[in-house]
Amino acid sequence: MAKLSGFPEFLPDERNLELAVLDELRRTFELHGFANIETRAVEPMDTLLRKGEIDKEVYVLKRLHEQGDADAGLGLHFDLTVPFARYVLENAGHLEFPFRRYQVQKVWRGERPQQGRFREFTQADIDIVGDGTLPFHADVEVARVMAEALSRLPVPALTLQVSNRKVLEGFYLGLGLSDPTAVMQVVDKLDKLPGERILELLAEQGVGDDSARACLALAEISSTDTSFVDRVRALGVEHPLLDEGLSELAAVVEACAPISAGGDVTVTADLRIARGLDYYTGTVFETTMAGYEHLGSICSGGRYDQLASDGKRTYPGVGISLGVSRLLVPLVADGLVADRAVPSAVLVALVDEDSRAESDALAQTLRSRGVPTEVAASAQKFGKQIRYAERRGIPFVLFPGDAAGERATRVRDIRTGEQIEVDVAIWQPPLEDLRPRIRTTDHQNS
Amino acid sequence: MAKLSGFPEFLPDERNLELAVLDELRRTFELHGFANIETRAVEPMDTLLRKGEIDKEVYVLKRLHEQGDADAGLGLHFDLTVPFARYVLENAGHLEFPFRRYQVQKVWRGERPQQGRFREFTQADIDIVGDGTLPFHADVEVARVMAEALSRLPVPALTLQVSNRKVLEGFYLGLGLSDPTAVMQVVDKLDKLPGERILELLAEQGVGDDSARACLALAEISSTDTSFVDRVRALGVEHPLLDEGLSELAAVVEACAPISAGGDVTVTADLRIARGLDYYTGTVFETTMAGYEHLGSICSGGRYDQLASDGKRTYPGVGISLGVSRLLVPLVADGLVADRAVPSAVLVALVDEDSRAESDALAQTLRSRGVPTEVAASAQKFGKQIRYAERRGIPFVLFPGDAAGERATRVRDIRTGEQIEVDVAIWQPPLEDLRPRIRTTDHQNS
Repeated sequence: MAKLSGFPEFLPDERNLELAVLDELRRTFELHGFANIETRAVEPMDTLLRKGEIDKEVYVLKRLHEQGDADAGLGLHFDLTVPFARYVLENAGHLEFPFRRYQVQKVWRGERPQQGRFREFTQADIDIVGDGTLPFHADVEVARVMAEALSRLPVPALTLQVSNRKVLEGFYLGLGLSDPTAVMQVVDKLDKLPGERILELLAEQGVGDDSARACLALAEISSTDTSFVDRVRALGVEHPLLDEGLSELAAVVEACAPISAGGDVTVTADLRIARGLDYYTGTVFETTMAGYEHLGSICSGGRYDQLASDGKRTYPGVGISLGVSRLLVPLVADGLVADRAVPSAVLVALVDEDSRAESDALAQTLRSRGVPTEVAASAQKFGKQIRYAERRGIPFVLFPGDAAGERATRVRDIRTGEQIEVDVAIWQPPLEDLRPRIRTTDHQNS
Repeated sequence: MAKLSGFPEFLPDERNLELAVLDELRRTFELHGFANIETRAVEPMDTLLRKGEIDKEVYVLKRLHEQGDADAGLGLHFDLTVPFARYVLENAGHLEFPFRRYQVQKVWRGERPQQGRFREFTQADIDIVGDGTLPFHADVEVARVMAEALSRLPVPALTLQVSNRKVLEGFYLGLGLSDPTAVMQVVDKLDKLPGERILELLAEQGVGDDSARACLALAEISSTDTSFVDRVRALGVEHPLLDEGLSELAAVVEACAPISAGGDVTVTADLRIARGLDYYTGTVFETTMAGYEHLGSICSGGRYDQLASDGKRTYPGVGISLGVSRLLVPLVADGLVADRAVPSAVLVALVDEDSRAESDALAQTLRSRGVPTEVAASAQKFGKQIRYAERRGIPFVLFPGDAAGERATRVRDIRTGEQIEVDVAIWQPPLEDLRPRIRTTDHQNS
């Protein structure tokens, strides 16, 4: 049976890895007071197309035997930001602002599948939205919370690159350029085009050679501390918006320094980052993974002051979105999985079919103390039952004793082969064996 | 902004209730060794339409600017059983059988929305599938695991009604009726039609009056213990398939007796239950909720011996599917929610904007010990910050002391107003306040 291209599915041990990642994200987001919501998978087409750019990728729904246009105008959401903005407007009267939320759901895009790009994929977003205004420290908070969450994941080293539209726009305005957005969109192509080509494109826009070279010099500045500020100042451009942007960006990098110090996630100011989407107004984020730079950014976002507005009220926000599938599908393909395909920490062996009730009772005793336990499906020879546990990655097999006390209850550690007598009323597997663990391959460690 | 009919969405405190329910389900399923999987939201139309009956409800996908039929033939799944059967066939070489899995995902049906029926809703399924054969004790296991999971939910009393197709079919064959399936489909209408009308319909099928009355008498038998066996026997019909069915059904009811004894979920043999879908071959399940019988069954399933087959191999299974949305949306509408709209157990107050770093540090200390904590968004008067916590349902507000030690750090319990001095290095909210709790209204208690 052919798999559907662009619609990745995981085997149970791979899903256990994904579950561990999703649990860790949830734990961090909730520790910081972010509330969870889910939005419906569909939105009216006019909501989806408001931004204009992405229309070709939307999956439109139609009922199989639909007559006329009963459902006309519903499509699957292609991100979680547009539905969240709609949810905020629709429920504003029932929400408390600033509203911190996290949202982990699948999204769909009809684009051509390629590495790191799927037609169905999971995103994990955090956003903070205010009613009318939103203080800048919210930008610091989402950066710090996502960096902290990422630092706890069993993945290669990540670099969270932070920039600020105000720095770029203020700098361009300080140079006297009249259309900073157009300049930004050209400089944003530095990923794909050489610097010389960027200079040509800027010249075509009427940007003088000195200014163009200054724009390029700005884009080349990055630092893991606040030293970028002096390097920008050294370019000799002045503008109040530039000052504001530099101070904001420095605040984000400074606040994330303790996380950077941990080494798993480095938060860096990187003035090459501009984010193509046009609704960002200040802080912007992108994230690359060591050894997987070809995937592009796996975690992006920024400050948007105008995204959610019903005409009367505006709800400015700042958010960051982790591409869970973009992160995990390639790592899984390279061998990152959980050490078991089941949640079970213990397999209770079956002496014979007649004693299934006794094995069930032993299992239930362990479960009552929080130990995931399954009973062997059939009363095969113990050697076969042991191999059954091995194939699933279940670390312990429990062999029931008999009521007469002639045969003691014993536990075998599958990994060492060691077998000991136990009292099931008190025996417990080690804490670290209760849940599936992530098996990091050499590739991931490098 | 008009809500979309049939696509329910929850507010944060309602979602916290749903999360608590989903967590409890997952906990029970994993304690019993069920592995989690997710399948893609879409299936090829020929997979979706194989059963034939449900075709009018399928949402078909089309890319907005699609030329020709590039994506033709993809639709959103309408349940989790059909995708699971496809997943098992597609991945059989990588799975260990018997394969126990749970799956919690949204499904979509284009049917007309009405109470308890949605166009998008969440299902939670458990299934056990064997390779070639599957021992009967799997039927007992799924009944017991789902009953145990249901018994832990904060919902009104549930009745899990169990029947067995073999009892019905064996009984009809024992009466000498030639088309037991047709008889079953008539008797299955007892929910909607009076007994007299059923007798007429059976007569139209050529069933003699005595036999028709016996069929009706069978359907009226139910018991919370195994006494139903004697009542069936008393009807004087004999057939080997009937014997087999009675013994299976008695085994399920007997194994679930300890759960029934708890009082939250009663597992009962009920011979009125047949399940309309034609792929069930033995055990069948339905579930009603006290006070919400009009919703119909909120948790259904059964044994299917032929659902997953690739022509060479057959994978018999038994499963049961909980309609999470069907269960929760009406309860939420009647006032069942979590006691807070955020995960935060503590709000750290802000003395002034200059001391935000100190408040952040206190919050981080609490988080490092697993206490979900947020910092006040702005340095309003403490009275306002307290009301901010109250509106969100955050049980504790922490007021930072000053470095000079002139003002001690204090914690206020929002519910009692009591305020005490604390040492943040060791203070911890009570365990039961760490997570949102479910607030049961009088309605739900009755």
